[in-house]
Amino acid sequence: MTIAIIYGGNRANGNVETLTKLATEGLAVEEVYLKDYLIEPILDKRHAEEGFPEVNDDYNSIIDRILPHDILIFSTPIYWYSMTGIMKNFVDRWSQTLRDPNYPDFKTMMASKKAYVIAVGGDEPYVKGLPMIQQFQHIFDFIGTSFEGYIIGEGNRPGDISHDLKALAAAEHLRKELQ
Amino acid sequence: MTIAIIYGGNRANGNVETLTKLATEGLAVEEVYLKDYLIEPILDKRHAEEGFPEVNDDYNSIIDRILPHDILIFSTPIYWYSMTGIMKNFVDRWSQTLRDPNYPDFKTMMASKKAYVIAVGGDEPYVKGLPMIQQFQHIFDFIGTSFEGYIIGEGNRPGDISHDLKALAAAEHLRKELQ
Amino acid sequence: MTIAIIYGGNRANGNVETLTKLATEGLAVEEVYLKDYLIEPILDKRHAEEGFPEVNDDYNSIIDRILPHDILIFSTPIYWYSMTGIMKNFVDRWSQTLRDPNYPDFKTMMASKKAYVIAVGGDEPYVKGLPMIQQFQHIFDFIGTSFEGYIIGEGNRPGDISHDLKALAAAEHLRKELQ
Amino acid sequence: MTIAIIYGGNRANGNVETLTKLATEGLAVEEVYLKDYLIEPILDKRHAEEGFPEVNDDYNSIIDRILPHDILIFSTPIYWYSMTGIMKNFVDRWSQTLRDPNYPDFKTMMASKKAYVIAVGGDEPYVKGLPMIQQFQHIFDFIGTSFEGYIIGEGNRPGDISHDLKALAAAEHLRKELQ
Repeated sequence: MTIAIIYGGNRANGNVETLTKLATEGLAVEEVYLKDYLIEPILDKRHAEEGFPEVNDDYNSIIDRILPHDILIFSTPIYWYSMTGIMKNFVDRWSQTLRDPNYPDFKTMMASKKAYVIAVGGDEPYVKGLPMIQQFQHIFDFIGTSFEGYIIGEGNRPGDISHDLKALAAAEHLRKELQ
Repeated sequence: MTIAIIYGGNRANGNVETLTKLATEGLAVEEVYLKDYLIEPILDKRHAEEGFPEVNDDYNSIIDRILPHDILIFSTPIYWYSMTGIMKNFVDRWSQTLRDPNYPDFKTMMASKKAYVIAVGGDEPYVKGLPMIQQFQHIFDFIGTSFEGYIIGEGNRPGDISHDLKALAAAEHLRKELQ
Repeated sequence: MTIAIIYGGNRANGNVETLTKLATEGLAVEEVYLKDYLIEPILDKRHAEEGFPEVNDDYNSIIDRILPHDILIFSTPIYWYSMTGIMKNFVDRWSQTLRDPNYPDFKTMMASKKAYVIAVGGDEPYVKGLPMIQQFQHIFDFIGTSFEGYIIGEGNRPGDISHDLKALAAAEHLRKELQ
Repeated sequence: MTIAIIYGGNRANGNVETLTKLATEGLAVEEVYLKDYLIEPILDKRHAEEGFPEVNDDYNSIIDRILPHDILIFSTPIYWYSMTGIMKNFVDRWSQTLRDPNYPDFKTMMASKKAYVIAVGGDEPYVKGLPMIQQFQHIFDFIGTSFEGYIIGEGNRPGDISHDLKALAAAEHLRKELQ
C-alpha cells in the first residue's frame, strides 16, 4: 500500500500540511503540491465533436504521479467552505481524463484506490465544512474510489492546529490505520 | 435595482447560461463571463507580514464591474458537485479583497447586495447539488450578502435544460421577482 | 398510477396540507393523516433472539393502506429542521416491517414506488430544510424507492403558504407531472 | 459544570450508550432515558387562540431534570439517518415550552448551555449522518445553545462500537474536555 498526498493549499507549512504530515509521519509518501504546478481550468468539450484539446500544462504529470498509488490523501485548507480553487480545477479536469484515450484505465484505476480527506478551516469547520465532505463523497462515488475517512481540523493563523487536540488525536489514529 | 451575472461555465451557450438568460430576459444585466478572464488562485498572505501582493490579472476589474450592482447572480454549471474551479478561484480571492486598502468598503458593499444562484448539473443535481447550495449560504453569510434564492436545473448534453420544465418554470418565476 | 399521501402534521388545514392539496387537486388520492393514529416508537429488536414483538397500534393498518399505491407523497411541516416526530416514528418502524414475516415483500414493494416530499417551514426552509431532503434521499436509497422530487415552501402562520408563489408554482407543476 | 445526558435509544446497553458512558466515565451525570417516559407528539397550537393545552405526560418532568445542568449530551442511535422518533418528539415539544408561561426563562436557560451530540449508526454514519449533525446545529442555533462538538460512531450489532477505534478515541478525548 503506497500513498500519494495531494496538497491544495498554497501557504508553505500551513495548518493542514502540518496535520497531514502528522498523519503520515514515518510513512513513505509521494507528495504533490498543486500550488507548484500550472493546472488550467477544464474546457468542457465533453459534447464537442472535436473532443478535448491537448492542454499544455502540468496536469497530466500529476495524474501520472498519483495513479500508481493505492491511497490518495486530499489535503486542503477550507477556503470559503470548500476545497481550494486550485484543487477544484484539478478535480474538474478528471472529466477530461475520463475521456482521454491516453488514460483508458483512469476510472478503473481510480476505482481501486482508497481516499482520505484532511481539511482545516477557521470558521466552525466541524459543521460548516460538512457540505465539502458530502461533495467529496459524491466525487468518490462517481469515480469509484472508496472514501475511507476524513479529518477536520480548526485553525486560522499559522500554528493554530497545534491547539486542536481532537484533530491531532484523529491524525495519530489515521497514521496507525495507514501503517 | 441593477443586476450583475457572474458566469462560471466555459462552454458558450451552455445549459446554465440558457437558464440564466431565461431568468433575466428583458432585464438590463451586466454579464461577466469568468472564462474570458485571467484569475489567479489566491496566495494566502492573510498572516504574512508583507501582506498580499498585487496580482497582475483581471480579478480586480471584475470586482469593479460587479460592485455597483444591487443583485448578483452566480450562474454555474455543477462540475463534480460544486461550482466550477474558475468560479471558486474568483470567490477565494475575496479573502484578499477583504484586506485590500483599495477596497475599504468591500464587505459593506457586498453586505448590501442580494444574491441568487443558478446551477445546472447532470447527476441528480436536485439532491447532489445541495451541499453546494449550503456552501453558498455559508459564503453569503460570511460576506453579509442576502441569499435570496436559487434554481437548480438538470442537464448534461447541450440543450438538455429545455426538458427540465420545473427549472424553466422556476426561471420564469425568478424573472418576475427580479422585475 | 395511484397516489397515497402521508401527512405528518397535526394542525388541520396547515400550510403543507394546503400546498399538498394544490399539488394533487383533481387526482384520486389515499390520504393518511398520521396524527389520527397511534404509532408506537420502534422497539429495536433487530438483534434480539425473540425478534420484534407484535405491537398493538395502528401502524400496520397504515402500511396496508399505502402499499397498494405507486406513488407516495410525504407531506410534513418542518419542525426543528426535520420531519415531525410522528412521521419519524412511522419511518423508524419500517425497520420492524423489513423483518416482519407478515410483510415478506415490503422492501420489494417499496422499491417499486416513486416518492415525493412536500415540506413547509418557517425558518429559511429553502436552505435550512436541505439536510432533511438529504435524509429522505438516504431513506429512499435504503428502501429502494425512487425519489422523484420535492417541494419546499415557506410559511409560519396559517395561510402563509399562499404568499410563497414559488412553492405554489412548483405545486402546480407537480400536479401536471402526477396526472 | 454539571452534565445531563438525554438518551434517545430504546435498546438497553446499545452501542451509543456504551460510547456515551465511555465519554462520561467518572463524571457525575444526570441520565435521562427517553424510552422510559411518555412523551406525546406536539400539538401545534402556536397560532391557536386558546394556546397550547396542558399535556398529561412526562415531558415537563424531563425538562425540569435537564434545565439545571450546564452541559447537555444528546445521545442517539441513528435511525434512518436521523435522531430517533422519540428524541424528535422530545425536541418538537420545545416549541410548546418556548410559549409556556411556566417556563418563562426556557430560551434564556437553554442559551446558556453547551451541547454535544453522540450518535452511532450502521450505514456509513460518518457521511450519511452529517445531515443530522447539520440539523442539530440549526436546532442549537435557534434555541441559542452552543454546539461544542459531536462524535459519530459506526455500529450495527450489539457491541460493534468496540471496533470503531476512531470513535473510542474521540470519546476518550471528549471525557478529558468534560472534566
